[in-house]
Amino acid sequence: MPADAPALKIANTRTEGAEVVLYDRAGGQSREALGAALVEERGLTLIRPYDEPQVIAGQGTCGLEIAEEARMLGIETAEVLVPCGGGGLSAGIALALQAEAPGVRVRTVEPRDFDDTARSLAAGRRLGNASQAGGLCDAILTPMPGEITFPILARLCGPGLAVGDTDVLRAMAEAYQRLKLVAEPGGAVALAAALFHGSEIAGETVICVISGGNVDAATFGLALKTLG
Amino acid sequence: MPADAPALKIANTRTEGAEVVLYDRAGGQSREALGAALVEERGLTLIRPYDEPQVIAGQGTCGLEIAEEARMLGIETAEVLVPCGGGGLSAGIALALQAEAPGVRVRTVEPRDFDDTARSLAAGRRLGNASQAGGLCDAILTPMPGEITFPILARLCGPGLAVGDTDVLRAMAEAYQRLKLVAEPGGAVALAAALFHGSEIAGETVICVISGGNVDAATFGLALKTLG
Repeated sequence: MPADAPALKIANTRTEGAEVVLYDRAGGQSREALGAALVEERGLTLIRPYDEPQVIAGQGTCGLEIAEEARMLGIETAEVLVPCGGGGLSAGIALALQAEAPGVRVRTVEPRDFDDTARSLAAGRRLGNASQAGGLCDAILTPMPGEITFPILARLCGPGLAVGDTDVLRAMAEAYQRLKLVAEPGGAVALAAALFHGSEIAGETVICVISGGNVDAATFGLALKTLG
Repeated sequence: MPADAPALKIANTRTEGAEVVLYDRAGGQSREALGAALVEERGLTLIRPYDEPQVIAGQGTCGLEIAEEARMLGIETAEVLVPCGGGGLSAGIALALQAEAPGVRVRTVEPRDFDDTARSLAAGRRLGNASQAGGLCDAILTPMPGEITFPILARLCGPGLAVGDTDVLRAMAEAYQRLKLVAEPGGAVALAAALFHGSEIAGETVICVISGGNVDAATFGLALKTLG
């Protein structure tokens, strides 16, 4: 994990029994190189967080649930806003919807200064971010869209959306106040787009994925402060 | 609503379109007398919050869900911890479980200084609380068990449990940290009993109801502080 991941996320993962190896994202240390060295040294199997067909398929079960609920509600056409880092969740959902609810289209949502997917979708090729760290939405900061995920996104998704940190904090507060859910900043970007970027979304029906609740109390407090 | 209800709860209710009439619980103003006067004056139909068969039946659908999930998991014997104010939720769940999962027993959980149900269950008759207001768990502070609910609880439930405010705050923090749920203090009492009163609970399997997330940011902040 990046050394600047939330302390809560690192602690929760250790509580589950994992050995957490930290790396310096801000200083440019490569997670890929570190992973490769650990695999070599200990004879491990590497499971990538997004560029991995079975991870994408697993995250796609969220798309199966969306398709089932949309069918139950009689929804045939909609946009699904999905928090996007490396693109595994977005790609998995897009594949599931292609098969089960072809009128429902994925829109990726990213933090404004880490919108590599939105820019890559617009350019038709994979582009990176200027920064590798910093910003509020640590969990979905990735260097660029994945090798496996990007072609899926390019084929199936609409234009990418990007949201600012203030809107993310306000969305976290709305999730707290109305939905009674704890969302981490990166997990709330799609909700922020749904609430505050309506003019960029097509159609009447918006479906929104909230994913991830590993947020330190101090950051959560910043979100609650937006309630005034 | 009591004038000392969370500002968030009052605001959320008004947002839903309701007219909220406040009363002074701490000063001993009677909600029942106020309700009766409004009914008379405006020709309204009174729906009591717990001493109302259809409210109890509606809350009992939570018991149907518990029975269904227990069956799916192969659970035949368990204790279900339920936050208890006037006893509507507890009574509804107890009735549903009597019909659908008779080996699963309800245990009411209350704040320590407002444990009228636990004392009433022990005494075999309805007893009141010394105080009518104050304390952390505003939503489940009621003067005494209901006329309709208490006989159901007395027939179907095990001994009542009571928890202290510190344990409630710690349970809210656990819900935040592990379950990613926003629980109000009164909604977290059963989780507090499950986490910190294990010695008072029989058997291996504990089912816990978390109900209600209307909590002001300041109170939520108190809970997060227990994470240290």
